[in-house]
Amino acid sequence: MNPDLRRERAAASFNPELLTHILDGSPANTRRRREIENLLLNDPDFQHEDLNFLTRGQRYEVAVRKSACMVKKMREFDIADPKEIMWFKRKLLVNVDPMNLNYTMFIPTLLNQGTTAQQEKWLHSATGAQIIGTYAQTEMGHGTHLRGLETTATYDPKTQEFILNSPTVTSIKWWPGGLGKTSNHAIVLAQLITKGKSHGLHAFIVPIREIGTHKPLPGITVGDIGPKFGYDEMDNGYLKMDNYRIPRENMLMKYAQVKPDGTYVKPVSNKLTYGTMVFVRSFLVGEAAQALSKACTIAIRYSAVRHQSEITPGEPEPQILDFQTQQYKLLPLLANAYAFQFVGTYIKDTYHRINEGIGQGDLSELPELHALTAGLKAFTTWTTNAGIEACRMACGGHGYSHCSGLPRIYVTFTPTCTFEGENTVMMLQTARFLMKSYDQVHSGKLVCGMVSYLNDLPSQRIQPQQVAVWPTVVDINSPDSLVEAYKLRAARLVEIAAKNLQTEVLHRKSKEVAWNLTSVDLVQASEAHCHYVVVKLFSEKLHTIQDESIQAVLRNLCLLYSLYGISQKAGDFLQGGIMTESHITQVNQRVKELLTVIRPDAVALVDAFDFQDVALGSVLGRYDGNVYENLFEWAKKSPLNKTEVHESYYKYLKPLQSKL
Amino acid sequence: MNPDLRRERAAASFNPELLTHILDGSPANTRRRREIENLLLNDPDFQHEDLNFLTRGQRYEVAVRKSACMVKKMREFDIADPKEIMWFKRKLLVNVDPMNLNYTMFIPTLLNQGTTAQQEKWLHSATGAQIIGTYAQTEMGHGTHLRGLETTATYDPKTQEFILNSPTVTSIKWWPGGLGKTSNHAIVLAQLITKGKSHGLHAFIVPIREIGTHKPLPGITVGDIGPKFGYDEMDNGYLKMDNYRIPRENMLMKYAQVKPDGTYVKPVSNKLTYGTMVFVRSFLVGEAAQALSKACTIAIRYSAVRHQSEITPGEPEPQILDFQTQQYKLLPLLANAYAFQFVGTYIKDTYHRINEGIGQGDLSELPELHALTAGLKAFTTWTTNAGIEACRMACGGHGYSHCSGLPRIYVTFTPTCTFEGENTVMMLQTARFLMKSYDQVHSGKLVCGMVSYLNDLPSQRIQPQQVAVWPTVVDINSPDSLVEAYKLRAARLVEIAAKNLQTEVLHRKSKEVAWNLTSVDLVQASEAHCHYVVVKLFSEKLHTIQDESIQAVLRNLCLLYSLYGISQKAGDFLQGGIMTESHITQVNQRVKELLTVIRPDAVALVDAFDFQDVALGSVLGRYDGNVYENLFEWAKKSPLNKTEVHESYYKYLKPLQSKL
Repeated sequence: MNPDLRRERAAASFNPELLTHILDGSPANTRRRREIENLLLNDPDFQHEDLNFLTRGQRYEVAVRKSACMVKKMREFDIADPKEIMWFKRKLLVNVDPMNLNYTMFIPTLLNQGTTAQQEKWLHSATGAQIIGTYAQTEMGHGTHLRGLETTATYDPKTQEFILNSPTVTSIKWWPGGLGKTSNHAIVLAQLITKGKSHGLHAFIVPIREIGTHKPLPGITVGDIGPKFGYDEMDNGYLKMDNYRIPRENMLMKYAQVKPDGTYVKPVSNKLTYGTMVFVRSFLVGEAAQALSKACTIAIRYSAVRHQSEITPGEPEPQILDFQTQQYKLLPLLANAYAFQFVGTYIKDTYHRINEGIGQGDLSELPELHALTAGLKAFTTWTTNAGIEACRMACGGHGYSHCSGLPRIYVTFTPTCTFEGENTVMMLQTARFLMKSYDQVHSGKLVCGMVSYLNDLPSQRIQPQQVAVWPTVVDINSPDSLVEAYKLRAARLVEIAAKNLQTEVLHRKSKEVAWNLTSVDLVQASEAHCHYVVVKLFSEKLHTIQDESIQAVLRNLCLLYSLYGISQKAGDFLQGGIMTESHITQVNQRVKELLTVIRPDAVALVDAFDFQDVALGSVLGRYDGNVYENLFEWAKKSPLNKTEVHESYYKYLKPLQSKL
Repeated sequence: MNPDLRRERAAASFNPELLTHILDGSPANTRRRREIENLLLNDPDFQHEDLNFLTRGQRYEVAVRKSACMVKKMREFDIADPKEIMWFKRKLLVNVDPMNLNYTMFIPTLLNQGTTAQQEKWLHSATGAQIIGTYAQTEMGHGTHLRGLETTATYDPKTQEFILNSPTVTSIKWWPGGLGKTSNHAIVLAQLITKGKSHGLHAFIVPIREIGTHKPLPGITVGDIGPKFGYDEMDNGYLKMDNYRIPRENMLMKYAQVKPDGTYVKPVSNKLTYGTMVFVRSFLVGEAAQALSKACTIAIRYSAVRHQSEITPGEPEPQILDFQTQQYKLLPLLANAYAFQFVGTYIKDTYHRINEGIGQGDLSELPELHALTAGLKAFTTWTTNAGIEACRMACGGHGYSHCSGLPRIYVTFTPTCTFEGENTVMMLQTARFLMKSYDQVHSGKLVCGMVSYLNDLPSQRIQPQQVAVWPTVVDINSPDSLVEAYKLRAARLVEIAAKNLQTEVLHRKSKEVAWNLTSVDLVQASEAHCHYVVVKLFSEKLHTIQDESIQAVLRNLCLLYSLYGISQKAGDFLQGGIMTESHITQVNQRVKELLTVIRPDAVALVDAFDFQDVALGSVLGRYDGNVYENLFEWAKKSPLNKTEVHESYYKYLKPLQSKL
């Protein structure tokens, strides 16, 4: 092991193994997770190959091979629990899986929206991958706004078939994962038309390739949408349908139905489709935590190994982690990663709790959960997105090489800011809930849950022109006191957005135009709300930690997270007199002190995330810290090094030189 | 042309052609630039091919072909002016050039540091590309800190040769562009040792591949460092030397010399090597402006073409540029791009002015220029780096596809934050100048240039605990008044950093440790200084604009730039009482109003950047706005679409399905 890393680990103030148990939920969970990881790690079929040296076609092929292998393993090991499948993928497979949507979207949609007969017809084949399905919703010209989708499914009672059409270029289904080359079926979202009337979006099971030959079926145009920033292994695809007929039974009819004669039967309720969306978004919060944790692991280990420049002339080059500027880049992100880990666990648990309630008919908490997951999805993915790049750039030049693993983590993560609800749209959904809650309080009703701080608003009217309205004395060394400060900031920004919205309503023709003209304020209010939630959950987590040494280090991380946020958004805290100038000066000073305090535990804190080297995919972030010799070995494998003299020399350089 | 874009262009309040002239410096410059562009555009040898569909090996080959072609064209058209060469590349070649360093580093270094005899020996061959040179400075374990470089050049008086060695793995030369496969020579920076004594870094001309065969020479290990985030076309390389001997005459000896007997002769001054560095950094400011302008062009045109969602229910989907949140993402970046365009021109002109002075022995302005280019390089590249990604994400899902061109612009630009001086190190260099200037003022001497505001400090002592110390009444509608506000903010943050530094000096053993423990404050002071410079240059530019309609629109952009910055850093302006809470509330409101005011001119403002479609490399940013049909055509070219059924189906999916 690299001597710097050995020294770092020996000097840590706590036992990282105990912290790993906390992150996993229990020692038993840690054991089970490692069991599954090792099962795959020791399996020769999963031998890791470095995708960086392959072409996109080769990468796709590797991914299909692994994907097919995974299906076999699941049969072999009898693993069917979706959570354990996710563990498989999340921790081990650095690559992207072309058959992923069959398991995460096609089958779940069939289960949620298909009748028993439909499930009997397709489920077994889909589970066994004879049917490989995907989920085709977005179109070339239409994403977030579902009502804008153009694909039509027109019922023909004569043949009892639906006729599917992509009437325009913009209506071509675009982006679905695995659609281009891998899938032979898709659940297609289309505007249902029957008896000359449109009934909005419905889901249809559409065969797109022939079983046995995999050839596209007549009437179907299908293909890969081309190279992207990342996801090289995924054949995101397009699908164009021209008068393509499917049997009536291929419409998923658990809720809405079309009778043989074309009569449309409305669904009883739309609320339950809600659930999947909320689940996926809450899952993405956990994904953000994982991605940021990975990036921090790489950057912090490398910063302990890397020596550069000088603090005191004549002395040996220090570890770059000893530079205050480097600590200022990485340690707040590390605190962030821990915060998001705890938020991820909270939101997962809350989802399961509320989902059980829904199973028993209690929908009361769904609106807040919906608003919270939307906002937290946006808040955590935006922060993580910028954080991964900050980690990459903190690794200097080598961060830019694929040997660092960081470019790949970034390009694999960044779509989460856009998919499953574009982040700005998500923030505005949260804002809608905040405005509703605000109105409710002002009409004299109490609100509960995370927004309950709004109940205090009418008694603490915000007077922006005045200083020190808030009856708070902020103690910058108390996490709980900082939660109060964040709460007041959120309350203030919610109130400002609400008042600006009211003012616009007074001046404009419509509520909708007013909403648009206040949307910048509304997004800021949502951000402040989410920030408060994260600070609150982090500080509450501290109360559950038994081990004193871990308590101490997490408390410092929580303080750093909260104080760094205040120093970045000082204006918000100064306004309305939540904090004073002297507070802010103290906060800035305290942040610098905390960097020094946390620095010695930095390596142990990333070790506790417990990523195996193969999951990091990084020469710089290796557990053993033997970076440089492995960097050289890695570079030698570059395809350009296959020949000593590249053929372009003979083609272009030699002729050029002889022409002199 | 897409009807939305036609409507946008028809409704613009000014003539974009006139603004293009301003950006180019004059109508004549615009003419000449377009002449050169069209020369290449109409040349069949330069026919643009889409690199996105090629493997890295193919991309490298295309780049070598174009690079060789460029050399021929320069001979043919008799173009030797480095600025015109840069025009060629900057506007037209979206790709990266493996022979670039021959012209931008190898030849200039030979000219600056080689004797006349050395220039006679190598210059002609290098200009004609018989010698293809690169510049090998950074090592695997060493970047910014030059004294840390390990490569040695030991003089052997017996044979009158230098013996070059890479004594450790970390000493292997790493990263130089074109080093891996293309170059046959390198200027190598190595620690000179003669008569048993080390004399620090010196430059040596080192043949690495045999002329005629291009084979690596004995004692040389050379190759490609492997795939990176971007720069696929560039063979960034490694170079390991084992007792590799070169003649004494291969040390560049214009300044320092080693006599045949090994006697070392010191250079008279080191200052002049300074110049190249300053030039490259000032050039990067212009590059930042170009990259951000390109990204804005793509995102704004696409936002005018793209319809999505709804503002008012039942009405057609609006252009996404009509959403306030979209304007808030893009228009401040557009203002930024204009600001950086003007800063780029200013810094280029200033460089040339001061450089002329240096030619006449006047070095007085060099320290400030050095500090200013370091800080502005960091400030503009950081902002642009984040800005490109914001533009990409503002394009929704399609931004993530290589069809948008944005991923490529990002990965090609982002290294500028690290190379030619890592940005944090750059900010600290600027801070060193600011601290020196601060000390000078406090010792009673006046400072001049951009830091002259520090002269006012002693009379306007900052009292952080008190409000409204500054005798300023900020008029948020006056660019000049906002310059004053930025000036006060910079002065305040410089003073805080200086005082914190003093405090640390009082508490710590050494000045160096104190510097490290204040470095976060020092970086913030530098950022505030650079921000002030940008605001000042933008507002001064307004006074030179004749055309009233252009005056008006640039004035609004300047206001947006300045006010947006204040709203983002409100804490800095509230502290020290530079602005009041009521100011900040007004600023936030005014920013939203300016979005509405600038919105109708957005497309014309990006048209004025005058990028040809081939330079943007973007389906989304096409001038004609015909995005969707071209998106489909582009996707069809994806290599995965070459066969209807991908071979991985036969290999992995079919066997899997038959096993059911």
